[in-house]
Amino acid sequence: MLIFEHQRISANGRLEIGGCDTAALAAEFGTPLYVMDETAIRNRMRAWHSAFNALYPTGIAYASKAFLTTAMVRIVEQEGLNLDVASGGELYTAVKAGFPADRLVFHGNNKSDDELEMGLRHNVGRLVIDNFHELERLNAFAGARGMKQGVLIRCTPGIDPHTHRLIRTGQEDTKFGFSIKSGDAAEAARRIEASPNLELTGIHCHLGSNLMDATSHLDAVDVMVAFLARLQRDINRTLSELDLGGGLGVRYLPDQRPVSVETFAGSVVPNLIETLDKHGAGRPRLGLEPGRSIVAEAGTTLYTIGAVKEVAIPSAPGKRIYVNIDGGMSDNPRPQLYEARYSAILANRANESPDTQVTIAGKHCETDILISNIDLPLPRPGDILAVQTTGAYNHSMASNYNRLARPAVVLVREGTADLIVRRETLEDIVARDIIPDRLRA
Amino acid sequence: MLIFEHQRISANGRLEIGGCDTAALAAEFGTPLYVMDETAIRNRMRAWHSAFNALYPTGIAYASKAFLTTAMVRIVEQEGLNLDVASGGELYTAVKAGFPADRLVFHGNNKSDDELEMGLRHNVGRLVIDNFHELERLNAFAGARGMKQGVLIRCTPGIDPHTHRLIRTGQEDTKFGFSIKSGDAAEAARRIEASPNLELTGIHCHLGSNLMDATSHLDAVDVMVAFLARLQRDINRTLSELDLGGGLGVRYLPDQRPVSVETFAGSVVPNLIETLDKHGAGRPRLGLEPGRSIVAEAGTTLYTIGAVKEVAIPSAPGKRIYVNIDGGMSDNPRPQLYEARYSAILANRANESPDTQVTIAGKHCETDILISNIDLPLPRPGDILAVQTTGAYNHSMASNYNRLARPAVVLVREGTADLIVRRETLEDIVARDIIPDRLRA
Repeated sequence: MLIFEHQRISANGRLEIGGCDTAALAAEFGTPLYVMDETAIRNRMRAWHSAFNALYPTGIAYASKAFLTTAMVRIVEQEGLNLDVASGGELYTAVKAGFPADRLVFHGNNKSDDELEMGLRHNVGRLVIDNFHELERLNAFAGARGMKQGVLIRCTPGIDPHTHRLIRTGQEDTKFGFSIKSGDAAEAARRIEASPNLELTGIHCHLGSNLMDATSHLDAVDVMVAFLARLQRDINRTLSELDLGGGLGVRYLPDQRPVSVETFAGSVVPNLIETLDKHGAGRPRLGLEPGRSIVAEAGTTLYTIGAVKEVAIPSAPGKRIYVNIDGGMSDNPRPQLYEARYSAILANRANESPDTQVTIAGKHCETDILISNIDLPLPRPGDILAVQTTGAYNHSMASNYNRLARPAVVLVREGTADLIVRRETLEDIVARDIIPDRLRA
Repeated sequence: MLIFEHQRISANGRLEIGGCDTAALAAEFGTPLYVMDETAIRNRMRAWHSAFNALYPTGIAYASKAFLTTAMVRIVEQEGLNLDVASGGELYTAVKAGFPADRLVFHGNNKSDDELEMGLRHNVGRLVIDNFHELERLNAFAGARGMKQGVLIRCTPGIDPHTHRLIRTGQEDTKFGFSIKSGDAAEAARRIEASPNLELTGIHCHLGSNLMDATSHLDAVDVMVAFLARLQRDINRTLSELDLGGGLGVRYLPDQRPVSVETFAGSVVPNLIETLDKHGAGRPRLGLEPGRSIVAEAGTTLYTIGAVKEVAIPSAPGKRIYVNIDGGMSDNPRPQLYEARYSAILANRANESPDTQVTIAGKHCETDILISNIDLPLPRPGDILAVQTTGAYNHSMASNYNRLARPAVVLVREGTADLIVRRETLEDIVARDIIPDRLRA
């Protein structure tokens, strides 16, 4: 069983998150319900900031794609982190919640004209240029506005990290960025230097997601610092930023042991300093962009259990118990997208012995298995299931498949719960639908 | 290249759908844009109805999970088909668009109390009972309303069709329905017969999705008719409905050859009649539930092409050309969910030679490849890409990942285009977000 630091089992056997009884949350706000622990989020942000800044000047940007709402933007702002956005919608959410534009980093492999204009209009601090097409347009748009935009170069370091193929991004064969090896990254730097409306402040890379240790980041330090040094000699000036992206993994299962943020910092920074010195590359400010690492473990999804069904299967143990929940792939597509595995707790009977192997099935019109073969006390209809580590890429990837309403999100802290995303209604689901007159007959 | 019957390439090299120039649609409605051809949808519905009813009395229910909007409901209603819904949201959409409740079939492996009550309140014609928990509740709720609800039994025929593992549903090891083999389906029938507020009208099964021929359905006829005959003897009366679900596949790629509806009917019906006679099982009305088969090929997604990037790769031909589009896994998650493959056309240059192998990449913050290695005329920024066969499970599974606004849907017919789902706005994306007062500081 996986129980996080911000969670406890109460004397009456209820799972508590942020001091709130999860069964009471389910009763008050309904299910499926995303529960986000504010203290856990803030602690994790502070851990990132402190662990690195104790060793080296580092700017931590929260990667908003993992989980973003206007309330989340406020937390990022209050904690003094930067914010990484990768679309007009993410940028709009940040602006809407009053986030200081100079602390925004604007990413994306295919920013539209509208998105580039939006970034300029809001004065985003840094825009990470992904390709030559973007470079030319951004320079033109900034010029038309009489602005000079600070930019980083998204570099492809040619590192293939050990993670799911769909979330690897640092290898040569990728849609992202400029290849260092091919010379494209250096060429991009020369063109930026020659662009009157762009100001090159540094280089950036991102390796992949849910990495269990610093191995790939150490490789990235070697490649990126060597390139930075060459680049600085090439353009004959010092760049102020070296951004190594995000990617540190989290605990989805009890036996997973991603390194702590402190260990991660303790591996990366000494290596960084040594490598900078070796290449005489100066002391650029380090940038990092954790997303999953900050919010995944802080999030738990509560479901109400419905029908429980035993079926005979040919393989041992000869039967399977399907436990149906009131959500599924619409609120958590990760098991189907990435074969992601999850841990869960029977939230209202958390002190009972997990003596029965069951399979958790969603309510969508296909296989829709959320968790295969997990040990729980035999669930009964009406029980509350808490699925752990759903804070990242669950709310953000949720759909209305089968026209299910998307869940509410509550933010819990010291025994209080605030609604930060209201549940969709049936009326919301048809809100954009239009019947042309000729079909009304 | 895959061009459907309802599409043509105009003299100036533009892809036309339903008599509408797709480049003009992209300009008018923006991209990404789902284009649905109304004539193709209606023709397909009529083909299903005619092909079967020419041979045997058959009720065709459109499986709304594939694609549902209020306008789509109107088309189903006008064509005289029944409508298969599998959630409160799908039911609500049908009711909202004025669909006759007696033609609704209500499915689902885990209907909530609210959904069962909603079905009763709206007088749905048939409710397909999936499990004993549901059976007991439905009988109680119907009794409280003084109603008698018509029901079918969802049976597990124990057939494992050849299709993607995630969309197989007829095998024994499934969350769906009552196993015939184990005796659960017969027990369900006995309990329904003993339930004063339920009226058993027939049996139902569903095998899986995107099947290329009738093989699995022929197996289902054998199993289901044999069970029906035993059941009728057991309860000493005749049942009026035998529903074999949906599942017929479509063309995603030029070399895919699913059998036609006519061939499918010509395989299934004679076998059905013969099997009914063999078992003395009478002449139950046949039910079928096509979804993908009706809408998939009628749908095309239009994207605007952005950055085009060439990268070196170690394998032949030594390079890959990434063509970035303004959508991706948020509007079409099927490549990542099912390794689904798609065909595409450069909509504004459709008469040029497809002489360049490219890879189509979405704009989301991960690999997000929509199509690997497809031959197109070398795309340029601003070109319009038309991805074929996106009418099923694209709009219905769309998300706001990376806070991208979900696309509009236009319905085209004889040269006119009607908006049937308006595009999401940035304001829509933050509409449910709430900032608690304590975070406003």
